[in-house]
Amino acid sequence: MKITALSGGVGAAKLISGLVKLTSPEDLTVIVNTGDDIILHGLYISPDVDIITYTLAGLVDEHRGWGIKDDTYNCLSMLGEYGGETWFNLGDRDLATHIFRTKMLREGLTLTQVTKKIAGLLNIRVNILPMSDERVETMIRIKGGGKINFQRYLVERKARDEVVGVEYVGAGSARPAPGVIEALLTAEKVVICPSNPVVSIGPILAIGEIKETLRGLKAPVVAVSPIIQGSPVKGPADKLMKGLNLEVSSRSVASLYKDFLDIMVIDEKDEGEEESIENMGLKVLKTDIMMRNLQDKVRVAKLVLEA
Amino acid sequence: MKITALSGGVGAAKLISGLVKLTSPEDLTVIVNTGDDIILHGLYISPDVDIITYTLAGLVDEHRGWGIKDDTYNCLSMLGEYGGETWFNLGDRDLATHIFRTKMLREGLTLTQVTKKIAGLLNIRVNILPMSDERVETMIRIKGGGKINFQRYLVERKARDEVVGVEYVGAGSARPAPGVIEALLTAEKVVICPSNPVVSIGPILAIGEIKETLRGLKAPVVAVSPIIQGSPVKGPADKLMKGLNLEVSSRSVASLYKDFLDIMVIDEKDEGEEESIENMGLKVLKTDIMMRNLQDKVRVAKLVLEA
Repeated sequence: MKITALSGGVGAAKLISGLVKLTSPEDLTVIVNTGDDIILHGLYISPDVDIITYTLAGLVDEHRGWGIKDDTYNCLSMLGEYGGETWFNLGDRDLATHIFRTKMLREGLTLTQVTKKIAGLLNIRVNILPMSDERVETMIRIKGGGKINFQRYLVERKARDEVVGVEYVGAGSARPAPGVIEALLTAEKVVICPSNPVVSIGPILAIGEIKETLRGLKAPVVAVSPIIQGSPVKGPADKLMKGLNLEVSSRSVASLYKDFLDIMVIDEKDEGEEESIENMGLKVLKTDIMMRNLQDKVRVAKLVLEA
Repeated sequence: MKITALSGGVGAAKLISGLVKLTSPEDLTVIVNTGDDIILHGLYISPDVDIITYTLAGLVDEHRGWGIKDDTYNCLSMLGEYGGETWFNLGDRDLATHIFRTKMLREGLTLTQVTKKIAGLLNIRVNILPMSDERVETMIRIKGGGKINFQRYLVERKARDEVVGVEYVGAGSARPAPGVIEALLTAEKVVICPSNPVVSIGPILAIGEIKETLRGLKAPVVAVSPIIQGSPVKGPADKLMKGLNLEVSSRSVASLYKDFLDIMVIDEKDEGEEESIENMGLKVLKTDIMMRNLQDKVRVAKLVLEA
């Protein structure tokens, strides 16, 4: 079965780790958020693409969910001595990815081409696609004025600012990366990973052609909620959703996707949300959606594939 | 006493380590060869500038004479997994220098400005100047045809090719970096470090304005030979000199510099060269020029300063 997933970083990587155990890797395409890409030290960093890549390559630091396991931080430490920014953790092996990517981008390759090349060199057979080759930057509007890059909001400022809005700068004119629309149109199932709906899935949906294509799909679209009992499994989804005056709940996530969604997978502990979601015309599946280990990941992935 | 030194890498760094113990650092200017600069992994690497900088910062790997002590090689190892070139050793901390330099060069700073900034951040008070802000590339012509970058000749191909010539590509039109001519004109003594005359001092002298200025100087010019008893203290000077049909000897080095040289410091073991050098109209000083430790470095530096 050909599967196409929309993905952010750490949460999505868990479900994808499960999906890849149940499908032929060539049949799986992952369309990854690039809204939180950032240039630091002159290097182009694509955090969500890297998380998915490192996860599928078996390189990821499993404990943190990002970066490369057993990495060292000597280059970053020296960059700090040169007055460089050290708030964004960049391991020595991880930096090789950014150096290699930046070199190829400067040589004229697209982000799609570079992502494919890196994946191939790491023997990944899953098709990892950035959502766009054009720059879309997720900017967080914070109370007191001002807009800051999402990574600065999340990592540098530790999500302490009060969010009053989110903008996907560049999304209005950005085209989907080559292969993205085709992967959606040819998929037998489309999966919205349990990622932050505002800053991980939101930027992907902000690209008009992607959202339009999802709306017209005949294949079923299944989303796994990133929220359990009103709290995000990980990350600042609650702060971001509140900042947009959204209820922090699985039904609220479903309402963001309802134009194109068919099935919503929510946690079995989520009481009283089922009816609201069904009233949107969606089917609801309930299970334990917390993915602690590979067994959990495969179990949730299996439910998604059978949905 | 204001001293200006012309310098390559490892050999020069030894003498400069001695000179800086005997002078006020602000009175010492080092004009460094950039002919063997190379771009690898999209990063601008300036090997001789880095050796001098790391040496003066107390960071250098004393055993090798280059790189940063106790460095790790995890980024380079991962770059290798991406198919990148790994023949040029780049430590993780060392890479920070190249990342930082490349970023600033791309932002429009000159190599002189970047070199000064890095030195300042490492609390170096000696004035380190690249010979030029323009690209001069030392190319080795090898038997069988073809020209290769000096680092590729020396490090990648381990100096195994037979040398038939050397070209300083770009030197004809390159201007000295800002401050270079002034540093020569205001020096009370100019020192030619014990560096490879062909590929370390040669590129500096290939810049017409520098050589002309040296020729017209009133201040004494002192060179320390990089050769003892017909063999280079370190590196491939013998192969390069032979390739240019030059005798591998201190007197041969003196003859390359004789247009502007006043005093030649040679090793006490060099028999029978004194007269040839004196016949060029130069003064000769003899001592043990092998600099094994700081005491040796200071001793040779003292002789140079008193010459």
